[in-house]
Amino acid sequence: MQEKKRMNHVSSDGETEIYYVSPVGYLRREDGRTIIDVLPAFTPALKELENFSHVQVFWWFDQFDDDGHRQTTRFEDMPFDAPVLGVFASRAPMRPNPIGLTTARIVRVNQEAGEVEVADMDAFDGTPILDLKGYLPHCDRVRNVRVPDWASHWPEWLPENGLGLED
Amino acid sequence: MQEKKRMNHVSSDGETEIYYVSPVGYLRREDGRTIIDVLPAFTPALKELENFSHVQVFWWFDQFDDDGHRQTTRFEDMPFDAPVLGVFASRAPMRPNPIGLTTARIVRVNQEAGEVEVADMDAFDGTPILDLKGYLPHCDRVRNVRVPDWASHWPEWLPENGLGLED
Repeated sequence: MQEKKRMNHVSSDGETEIYYVSPVGYLRREDGRTIIDVLPAFTPALKELENFSHVQVFWWFDQFDDDGHRQTTRFEDMPFDAPVLGVFASRAPMRPNPIGLTTARIVRVNQEAGEVEVADMDAFDGTPILDLKGYLPHCDRVRNVRVPDWASHWPEWLPENGLGLED
Repeated sequence: MQEKKRMNHVSSDGETEIYYVSPVGYLRREDGRTIIDVLPAFTPALKELENFSHVQVFWWFDQFDDDGHRQTTRFEDMPFDAPVLGVFASRAPMRPNPIGLTTARIVRVNQEAGEVEVADMDAFDGTPILDLKGYLPHCDRVRNVRVPDWASHWPEWLPENGLGLED
C-alpha cells in the first residue's frame, strides 16, 4: 500500500484515521411527500439533477450513531429467514460507518428552493443527508446479478415508488 | 422537521453538525488484482457476502478531502461534452462529503484473511474503504431509467469487469 498522502485526523489511539462528514440537507416527510431540503450553500450543486429519473441519496443513520451499534459486526436474528449475517452482507443501519444509501425516483427538483422531492425513502423525517448522485446505469445497474438464497424471492427491480418506511 | 434526537458533534460555528467516519479497510492494487483488505475488527462482518455476485463499495476520496474541493458545487468544464454540472448531478470526487461509491463484481471473499477481491474499481491503491453492502436488485437496480442527454450514449449496464482507473 502506498504511503498515505494525507491524514485527515488521527484518533487518540494514534492509529485510527478519522474523517468528518456534515449534512448537505435534511429529509422532510410531509403530507405523504418525501422532500430533501438542501442547505443554501449547496443548492448550486443541484444543477442538471432534474434530467435524471433517479438519484442515489446518501444519508446518515443518525439514530444508530453510537459505539454499541457501530461495533456490531453480525446479526443473529434478522426479521426474515436468513442465516447469521455479517453487517457487510446486510443493509441494516447498525454498521461501523452508519451511511445509508437509497436509490429513489425523482419527482421534482426545485433548485431555487433547494428542494428535491423523491418517490419515497426508507428514512425518517429529519434524517441528515450527506450526498446526492444522479443514477447512472453504467455505474450502478447490474445485468447479471446473483443474490443469496435468503434474498432470492425479493423483487428483481427497484419498485417504481421505492421502498418506503415499514409499518 | 422533528427535533434532532441526537447531535453527534457541533462545529465551532455552533450550527454545523459533524459526524465521524473511519476506514474499515483499504484498497490494495497488486499484480492487476484489486483487493479490499478489511481491518481485523471488521472481518466478522464479511459473513455471507460471498453469496452475492456484486458489492457496493463505499470509499473515501482521500485526495480530495480539503476545503477547496469540498466547497466545489459546480463544474464548468467536464472532460466530456456536458453543460455546467452541479456536483450532485455528477460522480466527481470533488464533493461536500467526498464519499465514493463503486458497484463491483466480487471475485472472491476470504473472511479469515479479511480479503475481498473485486473485478475492478476506479480508486487508487491505498484508498480508505468505509463500508460494503451486498448488491440487492430491489434496492439498486432501476428498470425504467432516464439520464441526461450528455450521458445518453454511455452503457446501459455496469460493464462485467467494472469501471477501472482511467489511463
